[in-house]
Amino acid sequence: MKNFPTKLLAILVWLAPICGAGLAAAAEEAPLSSASDDCIACHASVHPGIVADWKRSRHSRVTPAQALKKPKLQRRISASNVPENLANVAVGCAECHTMRAESHKDTFEHGDRKVHIVVSPADCATCHSEEASQFENNLMSFARKNLAQNKLYETLIKSVNGVRSLHGMKTSISDPDPETNADSCYHCHGTEVLVKGKVTRDTQAGEMEFPILEGWPNSGVGRFNPDGSKGSCSACHSRHQFAIQVARQPYTCSQCHKGPDVPAYPAFDVSKHGNLTASLKGEWKLTDVPWTVGKDFSAPTCAVCHVSLLVDSEGEIVAKRTHQMSDRLPWRILGLIYAHPHPKSPDTSIIVNKDGIQLPTTFTNERASQYLIDQAEMTKRRETLHKVCISCHSSEWVNGHWRRLENAIETTNQMTLTATKIALQAWEKGVAQRDNPFDEAIEKQWVQQWLFYANSTRFASAMMGADFGVFAHGRWHMAKNIQEMLDKLKALLILRRAAEDLPTKK
Amino acid sequence: MKNFPTKLLAILVWLAPICGAGLAAAAEEAPLSSASDDCIACHASVHPGIVADWKRSRHSRVTPAQALKKPKLQRRISASNVPENLANVAVGCAECHTMRAESHKDTFEHGDRKVHIVVSPADCATCHSEEASQFENNLMSFARKNLAQNKLYETLIKSVNGVRSLHGMKTSISDPDPETNADSCYHCHGTEVLVKGKVTRDTQAGEMEFPILEGWPNSGVGRFNPDGSKGSCSACHSRHQFAIQVARQPYTCSQCHKGPDVPAYPAFDVSKHGNLTASLKGEWKLTDVPWTVGKDFSAPTCAVCHVSLLVDSEGEIVAKRTHQMSDRLPWRILGLIYAHPHPKSPDTSIIVNKDGIQLPTTFTNERASQYLIDQAEMTKRRETLHKVCISCHSSEWVNGHWRRLENAIETTNQMTLTATKIALQAWEKGVAQRDNPFDEAIEKQWVQQWLFYANSTRFASAMMGADFGVFAHGRWHMAKNIQEMLDKLKALLILRRAAEDLPTKK
Amino acid sequence: MKNFPTKLLAILVWLAPICGAGLAAAAEEAPLSSASDDCIACHASVHPGIVADWKRSRHSRVTPAQALKKPKLQRRISASNVPENLANVAVGCAECHTMRAESHKDTFEHGDRKVHIVVSPADCATCHSEEASQFENNLMSFARKNLAQNKLYETLIKSVNGVRSLHGMKTSISDPDPETNADSCYHCHGTEVLVKGKVTRDTQAGEMEFPILEGWPNSGVGRFNPDGSKGSCSACHSRHQFAIQVARQPYTCSQCHKGPDVPAYPAFDVSKHGNLTASLKGEWKLTDVPWTVGKDFSAPTCAVCHVSLLVDSEGEIVAKRTHQMSDRLPWRILGLIYAHPHPKSPDTSIIVNKDGIQLPTTFTNERASQYLIDQAEMTKRRETLHKVCISCHSSEWVNGHWRRLENAIETTNQMTLTATKIALQAWEKGVAQRDNPFDEAIEKQWVQQWLFYANSTRFASAMMGADFGVFAHGRWHMAKNIQEMLDKLKALLILRRAAEDLPTKK
Repeated sequence: MKNFPTKLLAILVWLAPICGAGLAAAAEEAPLSSASDDCIACHASVHPGIVADWKRSRHSRVTPAQALKKPKLQRRISASNVPENLANVAVGCAECHTMRAESHKDTFEHGDRKVHIVVSPADCATCHSEEASQFENNLMSFARKNLAQNKLYETLIKSVNGVRSLHGMKTSISDPDPETNADSCYHCHGTEVLVKGKVTRDTQAGEMEFPILEGWPNSGVGRFNPDGSKGSCSACHSRHQFAIQVARQPYTCSQCHKGPDVPAYPAFDVSKHGNLTASLKGEWKLTDVPWTVGKDFSAPTCAVCHVSLLVDSEGEIVAKRTHQMSDRLPWRILGLIYAHPHPKSPDTSIIVNKDGIQLPTTFTNERASQYLIDQAEMTKRRETLHKVCISCHSSEWVNGHWRRLENAIETTNQMTLTATKIALQAWEKGVAQRDNPFDEAIEKQWVQQWLFYANSTRFASAMMGADFGVFAHGRWHMAKNIQEMLDKLKALLILRRAAEDLPTKK
Repeated sequence: MKNFPTKLLAILVWLAPICGAGLAAAAEEAPLSSASDDCIACHASVHPGIVADWKRSRHSRVTPAQALKKPKLQRRISASNVPENLANVAVGCAECHTMRAESHKDTFEHGDRKVHIVVSPADCATCHSEEASQFENNLMSFARKNLAQNKLYETLIKSVNGVRSLHGMKTSISDPDPETNADSCYHCHGTEVLVKGKVTRDTQAGEMEFPILEGWPNSGVGRFNPDGSKGSCSACHSRHQFAIQVARQPYTCSQCHKGPDVPAYPAFDVSKHGNLTASLKGEWKLTDVPWTVGKDFSAPTCAVCHVSLLVDSEGEIVAKRTHQMSDRLPWRILGLIYAHPHPKSPDTSIIVNKDGIQLPTTFTNERASQYLIDQAEMTKRRETLHKVCISCHSSEWVNGHWRRLENAIETTNQMTLTATKIALQAWEKGVAQRDNPFDEAIEKQWVQQWLFYANSTRFASAMMGADFGVFAHGRWHMAKNIQEMLDKLKALLILRRAAEDLPTKK
Repeated sequence: MKNFPTKLLAILVWLAPICGAGLAAAAEEAPLSSASDDCIACHASVHPGIVADWKRSRHSRVTPAQALKKPKLQRRISASNVPENLANVAVGCAECHTMRAESHKDTFEHGDRKVHIVVSPADCATCHSEEASQFENNLMSFARKNLAQNKLYETLIKSVNGVRSLHGMKTSISDPDPETNADSCYHCHGTEVLVKGKVTRDTQAGEMEFPILEGWPNSGVGRFNPDGSKGSCSACHSRHQFAIQVARQPYTCSQCHKGPDVPAYPAFDVSKHGNLTASLKGEWKLTDVPWTVGKDFSAPTCAVCHVSLLVDSEGEIVAKRTHQMSDRLPWRILGLIYAHPHPKSPDTSIIVNKDGIQLPTTFTNERASQYLIDQAEMTKRRETLHKVCISCHSSEWVNGHWRRLENAIETTNQMTLTATKIALQAWEKGVAQRDNPFDEAIEKQWVQQWLFYANSTRFASAMMGADFGVFAHGRWHMAKNIQEMLDKLKALLILRRAAEDLPTKK
């Protein structure tokens, strides 16, 4: 290659990364274990999409041993060592789906191996130990437990998912069936995956026996797994490519944070940050580790502020990677029913407020403070996030932003209190029944006040997506809803009197 | 070129496709007919966007004869032969716009040729015969007929598009004007394009005469064309590039399936599949035919499940291309007013239910079964789609998904029935009038029950976009709406008594 | 480089632009002023995101003198000359943030320079004089003034942003606090940025003094700046990359035009144009100036129709660049409360209608015509936009589109009038109070009629995104809302009588 012009080589070297694929990456190769080789022999034709997707993954190209050789900040693996049998092969089918076979109730004999269906955070912890243990402290890993083991929320779930029937002029609600719950709340919060016997199926390789799973399919973030662990890494790290560029894009978070109850995504999407992400992400380096502020991306996605390991152009750490997202969050702006300091423990089912209810505040906003982080911890978390903000903004700017957000927390809580006072009157005066505070029309208006409109206003403020917090789903609706609740309360009271006193016709 | 270094050549060959443009593609060339050459001579400056867009199209680069030479599965043309005058020229302006001149009522003398404005599926059938004939069996090609020739829907259209005036304490509704209808329902369903005389206009080439078209512009999928055919290929295959990568992206479907009535897109968008599409589509091969599962794309867009020809990495067919989308769909989850097995005929205007209404079910969910596919056909269609699903999912997984969807169909139908029973009481008790069941406030609540909330819940279930089916537009709203309808009914009854019995003031 | 194969060079030249980055661009270099060099010395580590973002900008690579050498149509700079001290250096930190130091009340001593925080359109005008002066005539630069200096809108703002408290069965509204206003309406409309003293902060470089700013952060399009100017270029030209490809993508406009009040983006997004943009923008040339119709892009984004300099493939001008967007718009389809011809002056706070209210129409749609453009001006503006449309559509097509839009303006105005007549009855009969026409429940329904539903219908019509204008947020809701308002009015009247005449219990 002696005739090769140097300048041209330079151009090529320069072109390569621009073209969106690394020559280096293509060169990486990892040997497949014979077990995984066996898997692929059949599954490449049975489930071609899975195999092809995995082939695009880093798992197929880099062995754990190679991964461990990288400088600390560039590593995508946090265990300091990896079991010998896994270290020098690609992370293939068998590596994950036969790991810790005895721990998984869904393990079954398949070919001559013991395979399980549901790969759990406890499996992933083999190489990603730090992330797994952070995630155990993440509210999200408790997403199922905190919902399923809360008496009040149980009532809410029934109100949402139960089938309503009409009896004369009254409705009754059935207990929601498990399939509906799995298709609704627990799609994101996570189902309980249980093994319910075995079934024999005809396959391309003849008759085979498989476990029957209840609560399946599901990749909810707080899933109860057959091995007793909680959560699902594939909630965000979508299988089987587990591409970091997917987890880093806001569409991943939007899977569960788009609806009006926790509208982080729509608030982000309409913000300047959302605009820049949508407009420029094609030019960004979404796979680099660590992730360099300004160089690799020019506006924050959800992951930038809440999860990722960030460095500046000198390689200095701006923020450490965390899989306990609340690490960078002083306030929990998801109102239950008011916004409040983050709970100390990710297990919020242990919270009992002054009224004996499993809520971080009472209906009139008295905080169950012993369960919530204190001012010092709030300041610490705010400072962690502050460090991300000042990568692109002055302190004056960032402080101004926080001042507005905390003002929004205060005023939206006040608007929730006003709506709650109307609901309290309805309960006191007997035109609605508090035993289930979520099932009558006026109660549903009340729920929307805090769950939709106050939340939307706060998320819009937090993400600087004001357009979402005014007329789309925010302040306008908080105000309108209060007036409508009041009109409703008045009407219910007068109609009751009228029903009692007017002569009955028809 | 003897000094050309081999290794460098290899790199270039490798770089080319990554860079997103094929050298091969650029090499393709197709001669222009003299007729099309004439068109372009003027139109390149009059309508530069059209000409430039067409130049990017495959039509401009490949002749039908070249297209026919490809191996069967790679062909984008389904006719086994093409008329000789078309075979060896690019598919240019004249090829489509002068075809079958005598059949088109909108044909006019233009220069020295007979040109028509509205290119129809019958024109496209010349090369794309199979797609055209499948499309004739597609509900979509009947989108206008099924709406326009249904007495009940006529009432609905009037309720939506008519102008309401106030007379004292009553409203009246005018018949909707054709421009409003074309700007509303028939934008997607298709207008009737009629020739209404001629007009002379000053052009760059002097005075010229053009047909006056009513119902124009429109590219609705069930359009009535001046040649008597139904439909518009450009509804999905946007002119004049007709890019397959557009039709394959979900944004095309979203043009008509985004609103709360048929919310396929928002349900998809919030799903894992939608996330992967948004996050990774820049890395996918959106133009390859056939489309290889896993290799060309790593998650399904709408087209993957419902339309496209799919193969696995060995080139084995996973699913045949279809332009009759219901081929892969047992259930019609669009509730009218209940979800039901797909109609046998794409012409649903022929359906008459037990109550003599042109609906697939009665208001209380008795199916007009003779017009709907039977269990065997449902099973067959489900299996066709199943084959797509198992490319990436186990049978256990897919069966679990179907179980949930069919449960959602059942429970949402029940919730619609409950709402309907309230409406029926309102009609029976005379506080609403059934002659137009869509125009009073309580009736509109009822419509939203099935058209918005039940549909949204089902689409969310079908697409695994649960977030859309809980608080965004789904189960929460079904439950809330029932309570609000009931409160409304009670209020209407008491208010009527009060209006009759209270002394009148003011 | 004599051994360099010509053919290979050709391929490389051809590859380069496809790879999405210009070799030429990379070659450009601009010297940094010593002042900016000083800035970067510290700020590269304090705010790495800002510096890295700026480095990607054209400002960092091209000096004004180089920019001025380009042929007229290719220039991104409109001043005919640039002050000598700026001409031959990159447009760096100091160039903008120390410019016109004496005019900026937020100027402070920083190091040995006088730096100001808020760069204003008056600063940008140094090089972009034409854009700045057009923008001064743009309604948008008056976005704050027109809202803040309108008595009626003040009432609306209070109704949206004030905190509501409950007193027995009544609510009161507090005056909205400035942080809420800045987090809500004025986020887009612009705050008033005021200097409120100084603060000393510990920095990496020791103690430093900074101005305290009220109304900060903000990049609202009509912001009142500390130098007395109005507006913020970074509202659309996001700092510090100021990338033209961002301003040209619809996500920029969506920051303020996504909500139901001015839903230009969602209406566009669901249109054919929106589909093509989402599907194909990765293949477009979003940075070319001038912008060639069909060649650089194959469907219009917001900027194409409303802002950008467009040429055809021959380089002939299709539309001149404008930063006064109404240049191409005859109608103002944002109903206040009715759609109307555009105001003559961008300062709409001067408008007084027949009823003495600062609105372009009365509540019953009598226009304050002396403040609105006349038919001739409307025709002129329509023709300007027409020229953009016919790049891709026939005159018959475009005329048909306008006919529909103007019909939609007419019918939506009628639907607003009907709703208004119900509100007028409520006011006349005393069941609602007109002094604040926005704060009671029935009034809020009325506001939604024109602000949400009529606007949505018109934007859907204008953008041909019909799906948004039927069931999503349009005609269905206009009709439903009228019926609900009427039911509400009736109920309020009867309930009042009942409240007066029924014996009181409880």
